[in-house]
Amino acid sequence: MQMGRDLCLCLAITGLCIGLASGDQWNIFNLVKKPEGGGRSATTPTTTNLRNYCESWRINVELNNIRAFDVVPEECINHIGKYMTSSQYKADSERAIEESALYLSCFCAFEGDGKDAWIFDVDETLLSNLPYFKKHHFGGEKLNASSFEGWMRERKAPALERTLSLYHEIRGKGINIFLISSRREPLRDATVDNLIKVGYHGWKGLILRDLENECWEVQSYKAEARKRLVDQGYRIWGIIGDQWSSFDGFPAAKRTFKLPNSMYYVS
Amino acid sequence: MQMGRDLCLCLAITGLCIGLASGDQWNIFNLVKKPEGGGRSATTPTTTNLRNYCESWRINVELNNIRAFDVVPEECINHIGKYMTSSQYKADSERAIEESALYLSCFCAFEGDGKDAWIFDVDETLLSNLPYFKKHHFGGEKLNASSFEGWMRERKAPALERTLSLYHEIRGKGINIFLISSRREPLRDATVDNLIKVGYHGWKGLILRDLENECWEVQSYKAEARKRLVDQGYRIWGIIGDQWSSFDGFPAAKRTFKLPNSMYYVS
Repeated sequence: MQMGRDLCLCLAITGLCIGLASGDQWNIFNLVKKPEGGGRSATTPTTTNLRNYCESWRINVELNNIRAFDVVPEECINHIGKYMTSSQYKADSERAIEESALYLSCFCAFEGDGKDAWIFDVDETLLSNLPYFKKHHFGGEKLNASSFEGWMRERKAPALERTLSLYHEIRGKGINIFLISSRREPLRDATVDNLIKVGYHGWKGLILRDLENECWEVQSYKAEARKRLVDQGYRIWGIIGDQWSSFDGFPAAKRTFKLPNSMYYVS
Repeated sequence: MQMGRDLCLCLAITGLCIGLASGDQWNIFNLVKKPEGGGRSATTPTTTNLRNYCESWRINVELNNIRAFDVVPEECINHIGKYMTSSQYKADSERAIEESALYLSCFCAFEGDGKDAWIFDVDETLLSNLPYFKKHHFGGEKLNASSFEGWMRERKAPALERTLSLYHEIRGKGINIFLISSRREPLRDATVDNLIKVGYHGWKGLILRDLENECWEVQSYKAEARKRLVDQGYRIWGIIGDQWSSFDGFPAAKRTFKLPNSMYYVS
């Protein structure tokens, strides 16, 4: 999760370009133009197509086709809220974790020399910020870094239960667990307290953003963090995270597992 | 699409490992064990959870969390068939293409020196094999390479309409289009005929698998094909494809756009 200074916040690429492109050039499937004077320049879906439209927005976010959005489109807030609080979100997340467990059991030839490693994101991976986003339109409201960090300092984020159990399965195999988060260093105490309170403990390292890398792109910051691990001799067997920026760049992990999250995008 | 010799066919990793892991160890969310003697060793979802289960299978395929499956799970054939013939599949695909169009309009500083390039997959990207898969359980039947190539030789695959229009938008910008497909070289005439019949023409190169690389992993074959383009001075602005193996590896494109396809997996 990207946070911290406004300078670091994502640019709303999609919104920006809808504004720039002409109506003809940017003619979203199944959309009709709102009557002029309706207060919006962008096209908007007809009611009958709204579900299709919002679901296609969501799936294209998950596929990393839609990037760097700064808010969930207003007309899709309800759809995203329903999904993020649904049994489907739970099933989708848990299946991703099950696939990680399967990979760990079947395909990892751990050497047991203290250099086997696994990486987790924190937000929307170990901890769920859904209680916060429920009060903030499920991402339909531009993220306020101070407000969001205030929530983090409350240490109230619950665990994603299936991630918690996998976390301990991995620990039980003697694999070193590293948490690489885009939370800022001043949030360390709150993050550690929250993690321990909901059942996580025994990680090898919790890497947070410091002043030096606070305004790097998250992808570069996380790749650099992995590079330091690899330079220390660690073999990164896998990463579980909710953002593509947790996986991209080099060095890469042997496998990655993407958890769903269509509420925010971290570049 | 991976095809050709049996030697090249994907290993059913998921199926294999479900068989290997114990019931306790491999305990899929919301699943219950079938009664013993039911003819299957794997767990299976309760009816009420079937939709959640199959949708989570589908989304985890799209997220590249579930890899190298050789068939759609039997209990999900109906779900995948419904999706692949639905307005949602159309909307999801078309939104991916719209995002490509947006990127092309807003973010590509083409140099116009004859070295700007764009790459497309063929199957499930330019051409749709849905008519074939409708007769073969939407991927719920193990792919028979001879039968599938027989269908390709019939030259009857329709275009994905929104991809077709984007294709010509890209051509209109003077960008070189390369088609990199895992179809085999003996299918060149049928592929060219089919593409032209449905409206595609004017590509700079159609790269197919020859004897030398026929049994390479598709990802390696496609990365090698991109390397040859880059070595010739081309700048690869984007790739549109339905498989992660069309994007992964080096050299990478500046952007990639993933179209949905949960009927088959190409490693």
